[in-house]
Amino acid sequence: MPVVAGVPVKTFTVACAAALLTAACSGSTPTTTAAGPSTAPNRGSDVGVEYENTGTGPMVAPTVPTTPSVPTEMGVKQGNVRTFSLTASQFTQHIANFPLKTATVWGYNGSTPGPTLIAYAGEQIKVVVNNKLPEPTTMHFHGLHQPNADDGVSGISQPTPIPSGGTFDYGPFPVGHVGTFAYHSHFDGAVQDDRGLDGALIVLPTSEHQSVKAAVDVVMTLQQFDPPSEGGLVKPFGESGQFPFSTINGKTGDASRAAITIQRGDLVRIRIYNASNMVHSMHLHGHDEVLVDKNGHAVPAERQTTTTVAPGDFATIQFTADNPGNWLFHCHFPHHTANKMMAGYNGAPVGMLRIFHYDTAPAVPTAYFSSAHYASPTAMK
Amino acid sequence: MPVVAGVPVKTFTVACAAALLTAACSGSTPTTTAAGPSTAPNRGSDVGVEYENTGTGPMVAPTVPTTPSVPTEMGVKQGNVRTFSLTASQFTQHIANFPLKTATVWGYNGSTPGPTLIAYAGEQIKVVVNNKLPEPTTMHFHGLHQPNADDGVSGISQPTPIPSGGTFDYGPFPVGHVGTFAYHSHFDGAVQDDRGLDGALIVLPTSEHQSVKAAVDVVMTLQQFDPPSEGGLVKPFGESGQFPFSTINGKTGDASRAAITIQRGDLVRIRIYNASNMVHSMHLHGHDEVLVDKNGHAVPAERQTTTTVAPGDFATIQFTADNPGNWLFHCHFPHHTANKMMAGYNGAPVGMLRIFHYDTAPAVPTAYFSSAHYASPTAMK
Amino acid sequence: MPVVAGVPVKTFTVACAAALLTAACSGSTPTTTAAGPSTAPNRGSDVGVEYENTGTGPMVAPTVPTTPSVPTEMGVKQGNVRTFSLTASQFTQHIANFPLKTATVWGYNGSTPGPTLIAYAGEQIKVVVNNKLPEPTTMHFHGLHQPNADDGVSGISQPTPIPSGGTFDYGPFPVGHVGTFAYHSHFDGAVQDDRGLDGALIVLPTSEHQSVKAAVDVVMTLQQFDPPSEGGLVKPFGESGQFPFSTINGKTGDASRAAITIQRGDLVRIRIYNASNMVHSMHLHGHDEVLVDKNGHAVPAERQTTTTVAPGDFATIQFTADNPGNWLFHCHFPHHTANKMMAGYNGAPVGMLRIFHYDTAPAVPTAYFSSAHYASPTAMK
Repeated sequence: MPVVAGVPVKTFTVACAAALLTAACSGSTPTTTAAGPSTAPNRGSDVGVEYENTGTGPMVAPTVPTTPSVPTEMGVKQGNVRTFSLTASQFTQHIANFPLKTATVWGYNGSTPGPTLIAYAGEQIKVVVNNKLPEPTTMHFHGLHQPNADDGVSGISQPTPIPSGGTFDYGPFPVGHVGTFAYHSHFDGAVQDDRGLDGALIVLPTSEHQSVKAAVDVVMTLQQFDPPSEGGLVKPFGESGQFPFSTINGKTGDASRAAITIQRGDLVRIRIYNASNMVHSMHLHGHDEVLVDKNGHAVPAERQTTTTVAPGDFATIQFTADNPGNWLFHCHFPHHTANKMMAGYNGAPVGMLRIFHYDTAPAVPTAYFSSAHYASPTAMK
Repeated sequence: MPVVAGVPVKTFTVACAAALLTAACSGSTPTTTAAGPSTAPNRGSDVGVEYENTGTGPMVAPTVPTTPSVPTEMGVKQGNVRTFSLTASQFTQHIANFPLKTATVWGYNGSTPGPTLIAYAGEQIKVVVNNKLPEPTTMHFHGLHQPNADDGVSGISQPTPIPSGGTFDYGPFPVGHVGTFAYHSHFDGAVQDDRGLDGALIVLPTSEHQSVKAAVDVVMTLQQFDPPSEGGLVKPFGESGQFPFSTINGKTGDASRAAITIQRGDLVRIRIYNASNMVHSMHLHGHDEVLVDKNGHAVPAERQTTTTVAPGDFATIQFTADNPGNWLFHCHFPHHTANKMMAGYNGAPVGMLRIFHYDTAPAVPTAYFSSAHYASPTAMK
Repeated sequence: MPVVAGVPVKTFTVACAAALLTAACSGSTPTTTAAGPSTAPNRGSDVGVEYENTGTGPMVAPTVPTTPSVPTEMGVKQGNVRTFSLTASQFTQHIANFPLKTATVWGYNGSTPGPTLIAYAGEQIKVVVNNKLPEPTTMHFHGLHQPNADDGVSGISQPTPIPSGGTFDYGPFPVGHVGTFAYHSHFDGAVQDDRGLDGALIVLPTSEHQSVKAAVDVVMTLQQFDPPSEGGLVKPFGESGQFPFSTINGKTGDASRAAITIQRGDLVRIRIYNASNMVHSMHLHGHDEVLVDKNGHAVPAERQTTTTVAPGDFATIQFTADNPGNWLFHCHFPHHTANKMMAGYNGAPVGMLRIFHYDTAPAVPTAYFSSAHYASPTAMK
């Protein structure tokens, strides 16, 4: 059993291929000291290559996750170094359909959350940050074990932040352990993070057994915004204590334009990153959601109804598509599935929400993705 | 080991009979692949009958949980279908003793939370919802795996909600896995759920070993209300950001009228459902509370001081009554054990609280359950 | 396997000595029924002596934890009883560097949090509380299993609280299980706890194997304060819904004066106690933090990026110092690392934060610990 921080830490497999194909699932037993010194990979630092070599079937390339509504960035690979370029700036983004549509936010490459960065375990990454904001900024890599000089904490590990108009290179440094991570500003985070300066960073294995390959692998970054008016600059949480627009990947459910289509039998993986200022309780309708990874480390699989994520948390959940229909995935805080306390088409939840649509199910009513049908509930008039 | 959503999921026993009777506890070891294909029951869907067949001693009927302050509803059984009738309406409820006593809420059959529905694994349930509210509504079953047509999401899986004055039949559909679940409105949840349209739904095994039978089995649904004045209609959380009355089963601790009486040696089970809009941290005095089930699935038993539940979470905890006295069970957020920042008799906590009373202990001071003795603390005057 | 509250509960080792020295770590396998009746110690009550007798190497005295910014109190030992004296009063404390420095708080022996009390498993403790507050108070021991008469719940287990000017003796009662616990007022907690009437209580083993001895063992109590003006009496959370000063051990990061110095190779233990009114998400930069104990009970070691703690929670995390530099440990709620929405030197995070400084790393900029360099970020002007 590997020992980290003075304690033996159990390792668990991430996923075993075909659902209900129990016996063929290798490597699923926690390694114990009873078995002698463990041969499980060391997952405690980013210095070495490390990923879960489990599952069954031939070795294949993993599915590259997609991030609905947000670009994916693979960077430029030279030698073993993958280089990403991120420009921080202020811009207007479509965040909701009602009672307003747009907000002025801060983000990277014209999107908040910024593009999802993809790297492979064993590579080094370099991130070039170009600051077009009206004030200084820095970048921190959350959950990775970068050297202190690349930690990006303004005033501490990076005493002088990137000035407005300046550029800074983070890395190259190695990304060793497979998982879901993030990058975000670490200059005056109570303002810059709340305005949208964050994004997901996924470290994939170079190959994996066929059985652990997800048919659908989606990243969902949770944020909350408080624009004072149509197109207005979002206010940080600490000023208002309110987040009237709760979003996934920068958009409320009604503004997401389309459901995520899946097929019966699919292994569906959802990588949650809570970039907001509040705890959320993510609930999938019609299926159990199985927590398989928390904060960049595999955990013993646990079936859940809701998955609680605090600010800064990552959680990867999976489900097997076995109950056809149109199913919500949303935060179970009631007012996080409303836009400024208003519901959508026929009282439907909006806010921090996405819909999984089986290809055999009726289409989600198009009225849901429009503001045209909204009417204030009787009781609120 | 059963495989769910692509991963092997460990199964754990719910409870082994007599405390401290270690060796007699069968089935308590997590099934591992080392033991070959598991014979543990499939717990991943509601299609089949499924419950934890563990413990020792003869098979007996389980204790039917009670819900202090709230009715229990067994429904009407015909063939294998158990039918429940729930009427949603607006009414006045006694929620606290001070500084106000009543609020206008929305609930089912004249109670918020609505009656606790009891079914047995393997049955089908049918729920007839009669809408006497001033606006449309729907019903969702939280944590169960109903077919999409019974999912009750207004605007999505139920495009047309139940109009005011209308009726809708949900089900029959099978309830396969044993556990604590819930029902609630899924029309404009930020308003309807906050006003009280929710309740617990318990799926019991048809029989269980004597050793896992709880002497006391209580349901506690957590809610928070913000009535603007004596008897006023509660405001949704999103309007005020405040919940000045934190309740269990629709009443603050002072309004609960009586403690829950237990006896030394009892195995006491508490089924928590967080129907509120905030995280709570439920703490039992004088005993460890052992988490045995989360969100409808047994988990490895974990001794705790506080049990954190996010909105939409279920958690089942147990304790063995081994320390006589009068002991609080309450949320550890300080202002959730006050009514509008005011404490009870001699500064006692109120709000989200119940008291467990050993039958051999002195009676809880009756003044605690009255508003007569309240006085504002010096420092707050 | 020991059985508590009707369920078999796994026991886990707290820590095995030298990091990466896997095979030498004994006792690290959870006891299972497969191995027959367990001989693991009963950890379910405070009646007997109980601690984790794990690790390797000679038996040595454990490191006594320190609490940066807060006194440690070992009490007076007579026979098997350790007696502590705590005086509750109102006083002014340095809590931050900007935009204000001091607040009027309530605490014990002139400090909030009060002094960290140290006892050893198997001892009895007696706590003499002297009430110099302007109103009644009581004391509750959180996570311990004291007799009901020492539970300190005003109006219930202690019907008459300690009057202003009065004194009360709690105990002697046995402290049996090793862990991190707390004491706090249980009179009108929504006011008294929020003003600072709490502190940590650590129960140490009398001896432990060399390998589990931490080089650095620090207590961090989380609090939040809302002083209306320089030196003003802090307002309880329920009045404002805001906590503009988030602190560790009674001070924001900028007011902590100095980093915590560690050396490469150190096993560093952090004992977190959340005495505040909100959930926090504690994040360590540059290292995984390994959760080893929650709420006074060892848990299966879990590597994390953030550790979520709700009000009333204890969590013990460890890390091996293997990545030299200056590293933050802070709450990941963005506005909890700001003082009234203002950041520190060059936009550095302040608020609920401490810095771990490797002795080989450059000094943390002294400007960070001063208010002189603060400037409002451009965007907020």
